[in-house]
Amino acid sequence: MKSVEELGERKIIDIILKRLEPMPNMPIAFGDDVSAVDLGNGKLAVIKTDMLVSKTDMPPQMSPWQAARKAIVMNISDLAAKGVRPMALLASLGVPRSLSEQDIEQIGNGLNAGAREYDAYVLGGDTNEASDLVVSCVAFGMAEQSRVMLRRGAKPGDIVAVTGPFGKPAAGLKILLQNLSAPAPLKKKLVDSVLMPKARLKEGLTLAQTGAVTASIDSSDGLAWSLHEIARASNVGFHIDSLPMAEEAIKFANMHGLDPVELCLYAGEEYELVVTVTPSLFERARKKVSLIRIGYVNEEKTLVLKVLKKRVPIEPRGWEHLKTK
Amino acid sequence: MKSVEELGERKIIDIILKRLEPMPNMPIAFGDDVSAVDLGNGKLAVIKTDMLVSKTDMPPQMSPWQAARKAIVMNISDLAAKGVRPMALLASLGVPRSLSEQDIEQIGNGLNAGAREYDAYVLGGDTNEASDLVVSCVAFGMAEQSRVMLRRGAKPGDIVAVTGPFGKPAAGLKILLQNLSAPAPLKKKLVDSVLMPKARLKEGLTLAQTGAVTASIDSSDGLAWSLHEIARASNVGFHIDSLPMAEEAIKFANMHGLDPVELCLYAGEEYELVVTVTPSLFERARKKVSLIRIGYVNEEKTLVLKVLKKRVPIEPRGWEHLKTK
Repeated sequence: MKSVEELGERKIIDIILKRLEPMPNMPIAFGDDVSAVDLGNGKLAVIKTDMLVSKTDMPPQMSPWQAARKAIVMNISDLAAKGVRPMALLASLGVPRSLSEQDIEQIGNGLNAGAREYDAYVLGGDTNEASDLVVSCVAFGMAEQSRVMLRRGAKPGDIVAVTGPFGKPAAGLKILLQNLSAPAPLKKKLVDSVLMPKARLKEGLTLAQTGAVTASIDSSDGLAWSLHEIARASNVGFHIDSLPMAEEAIKFANMHGLDPVELCLYAGEEYELVVTVTPSLFERARKKVSLIRIGYVNEEKTLVLKVLKKRVPIEPRGWEHLKTK
Repeated sequence: MKSVEELGERKIIDIILKRLEPMPNMPIAFGDDVSAVDLGNGKLAVIKTDMLVSKTDMPPQMSPWQAARKAIVMNISDLAAKGVRPMALLASLGVPRSLSEQDIEQIGNGLNAGAREYDAYVLGGDTNEASDLVVSCVAFGMAEQSRVMLRRGAKPGDIVAVTGPFGKPAAGLKILLQNLSAPAPLKKKLVDSVLMPKARLKEGLTLAQTGAVTASIDSSDGLAWSLHEIARASNVGFHIDSLPMAEEAIKFANMHGLDPVELCLYAGEEYELVVTVTPSLFERARKKVSLIRIGYVNEEKTLVLKVLKKRVPIEPRGWEHLKTK
């Protein structure tokens, strides 16, 4: 019998999903970023829940305000990736006895700030005692089924694109957790990318309206992992020829002798959208949303990065809870 | 600055709710059992999230299967109290490293069993690492706004009724946590009421259709607390003259020199519905749902129990997280 450390988060999810009877006519398959209920007439009720746990998701420098806001943003990001506007949020809290009244005030304000930033509201929740600070949020929205962007749907020949550069949170986490140094303005940008993540809601909503996107995912487990998830759900492969490395991440990598490609591909806590786009509609989509083309979908079912004419495999790894490295 | 122990769960909830901007035209007020979004044409999307944390909600004898099932049932119970059918559930897990693969299998099976028992499905969720086992569930359903039974709405003269007797979980918890004894068949009934709670879904759905109920709540924080919540939300008082004490709880109380009234009023983990009913419609409602009349609503804004012609105050206490007694 294996321990959960040997299993890791993804195997745990597999074990659980295998035991759930699927709802008949489930409009969005198990394992996509969100779940949905078919309300008839092409309308879906879209729901997402994602939990922030202080132990693993909250660097010591993150305030309770930032943690509460982040827990909301994490959930909004998943709806954003599907092109669904969040109408309402809920928050269920696990509160350790070590918190103060001021911490609770910060949590209330952070929940509200996160929701209002995206024109949504927190409607309620629940409070319990727990050993860690736990902020488990729920995001709800309504959508036209035909407009929802799923993980599956990428076709060979489609363009792979992202909504922004990658690597800043990986560098920011090295500053926060390993105490690596950086000049003040650079440090602020990198650290802010971790403490104040932004969901790409406007981009997701606009992309869903273009009809150009064939598959979409948010990148909270990292770029490499997100590409693998789309590949797996769509049964395709990716050829990545132009990595979207953030300028600030490259600067930081150079200062510390780190590999900027590693920072860009294999770290979590990113909130850009990763999408595949029908080639003939790409330019039209790019006029509405700032998209960076990074490669194309192929039939080979492999994920490779082309560097200096060499093909380097992109491994299926990224942030994973519980897994001991 | 106060600690969360000095604040207690209810004050924490107040602090947070005060910091949330209310959504315009919120169809269900902050602090009711569920939240809702107005979808137009009198339709509401109803959402609830409630978290089970092993530390406080899971006696050592409760299996992971039972804990997962209970986390689902807790959420269904809140929809039941509003008369709303759960269509879909989600579960977000916090998993401690001490769990085994078998525990995870049990959790998957327990989530599914809890949902299927009430003809609903678990559509997905999320997994994280945490120090406690945390099962944070979400229940979703659709409702006609005019049929939803709120906490507010009780009027002087209304009959107060419950869907079943109280006291078994209080006795069961004394067996599980304080090792009090009971003969095997009695012990089984009392312990099962804690380990295998049942949501009064059929009763809640039927009551909502009668139009007879003016206010409703589930009793997971205990009978006394539930009465106080309806009283506060409706700005009324209660005169309770006939306590719904479970026969098994009385037997257990007699064996151990405990006060059966205390077991019936002040313990949590109960899942009966507590409702107020328009007097002229009470008999009609009782033909459809087994209801026990326990008193009536008055204008005095006090909660009293009449015993041997004496009026004894019912205190606003019950199960509360974090509060140090």
